[in-house]
Amino acid sequence: MSPQIVQFIQQSFEKQSLMSTLGAQLKSVSHGAVEIRVPLTAGNLQQHGFAHAGVTFAIGDSAAGYSALSVLPEEHEVLTTEMKINLLAPGNGDLLIARGRVVKPGRRLVIVQADVFAVDAGAETHIALMTGTMMPMPLT
Amino acid sequence: MSPQIVQFIQQSFEKQSLMSTLGAQLKSVSHGAVEIRVPLTAGNLQQHGFAHAGVTFAIGDSAAGYSALSVLPEEHEVLTTEMKINLLAPGNGDLLIARGRVVKPGRRLVIVQADVFAVDAGAETHIALMTGTMMPMPLT
Amino acid sequence: MSPQIVQFIQQSFEKQSLMSTLGAQLKSVSHGAVEIRVPLTAGNLQQHGFAHAGVTFAIGDSAAGYSALSVLPEEHEVLTTEMKINLLAPGNGDLLIARGRVVKPGRRLVIVQADVFAVDAGAETHIALMTGTMMPMPLT
Amino acid sequence: MSPQIVQFIQQSFEKQSLMSTLGAQLKSVSHGAVEIRVPLTAGNLQQHGFAHAGVTFAIGDSAAGYSALSVLPEEHEVLTTEMKINLLAPGNGDLLIARGRVVKPGRRLVIVQADVFAVDAGAETHIALMTGTMMPMPLT
Repeated sequence: MSPQIVQFIQQSFEKQSLMSTLGAQLKSVSHGAVEIRVPLTAGNLQQHGFAHAGVTFAIGDSAAGYSALSVLPEEHEVLTTEMKINLLAPGNGDLLIARGRVVKPGRRLVIVQADVFAVDAGAETHIALMTGTMMPMPLT
Repeated sequence: MSPQIVQFIQQSFEKQSLMSTLGAQLKSVSHGAVEIRVPLTAGNLQQHGFAHAGVTFAIGDSAAGYSALSVLPEEHEVLTTEMKINLLAPGNGDLLIARGRVVKPGRRLVIVQADVFAVDAGAETHIALMTGTMMPMPLT
Repeated sequence: MSPQIVQFIQQSFEKQSLMSTLGAQLKSVSHGAVEIRVPLTAGNLQQHGFAHAGVTFAIGDSAAGYSALSVLPEEHEVLTTEMKINLLAPGNGDLLIARGRVVKPGRRLVIVQADVFAVDAGAETHIALMTGTMMPMPLT
Repeated sequence: MSPQIVQFIQQSFEKQSLMSTLGAQLKSVSHGAVEIRVPLTAGNLQQHGFAHAGVTFAIGDSAAGYSALSVLPEEHEVLTTEMKINLLAPGNGDLLIARGRVVKPGRRLVIVQADVFAVDAGAETHIALMTGTMMPMPLT
């Protein structure tokens, strides 16, 4: 895919201050598929010591959004218009991995999906399934 | 409502380290309605300087979950099983306010809703509508 | 509101053959709010004799879509792009009433909500909460 | 899988009068996967002559629900508690095929998915992605 779009996604990710607050990292970008990881540090948890659903959602939403961006022409942004998350298991372990992908590209809307996994001692558990809609916005 | 349940919700909120990381505060708890606020500080943003959808989601999910907890008998917890967010406008301004409420109580599932508002120079804008399902869990 | 838009909605409703198959009726159209009713006849049920969720969804989706159409300029159509339904109670009784309304109008997307009620011996029970997104399409 | 559960699903399907009204057929039942088909007859359409979203939803919801039932012990029913549908393309052609599957089984909740395809002159188009939650109910 276009190195310009990869670079644009990396720069966009770096501008998301929440990703930095959470310690998230953009791990890979390919056409229609993006992976983001976040460590389960002391500040990312809910009241039982598992990953907070807000963290799970944040990296899943970003991974899904950038997967949409990866299939659009250059000089575009995307906005999340809606996203649903089904939580499948507690987010327990060392880190979370969000894998976003495009279900259906489109000029007006891009339908996306993300799966989030918790990694504990090397074993992945599927903890969330997300489906959503991204709206492409041409940059002026 | 029961002061024990109010106290339990306050203590639970304080144990959510993500809420502290984001700077969120539990503002009010009443039967079936909970309000949480978060300032739009430098670390809570997306790439255009608006509230990150992960922050909007995190406080809406928590407000909705605690509104469910507020209508349950003592000695319960709740888990989010699913939550959908429709984003209505950019989260721009000084702070976000999430107002959670119970749509339908139940022993097995509690259906909840949350509205999130951005406050800019005192004016509220409705930025997100969330609907979800909480599962009550008796504490052993 | 514009009598042309009311008439356009009525004509569109009459062209939806599923509404006729189910026996549904368009009861009222006002700016941003539309009501559709369907009798709980022998052919609209699930395996326990309650309203089938497909019937509940069908009238809620149509009521929500026409509420979006009611706030758009003339010469538009709308398409449902996504819709979530939370089922709150069994659909038991004589008829279902779906009340659609606009949460947030927009040129590119209209966010809508619908509540569906079952009416049994004159008493309404809230059986479903729906939220969704409609995409306006200009007629050529 | 248990022939008793297959038979129970077939009998349950036959009791859903809406499936008969729409002309839908249960095509296959295996462990965690169920397929339902419906012809695009004159009575199943929206105002432009495509499949009505209520029909798409109805067969997707039923396929997803029976896939949940197929992984439960005997003597259970399931209730849909929530379901989201993302519509990907118009339902145009001769028939719709809904394929339901289990994403995550559980005693209290079963998370399910369904994909719906339109078949036109033998070619399948993916028209809807659905994710939802089924609640198992023991038969007394």
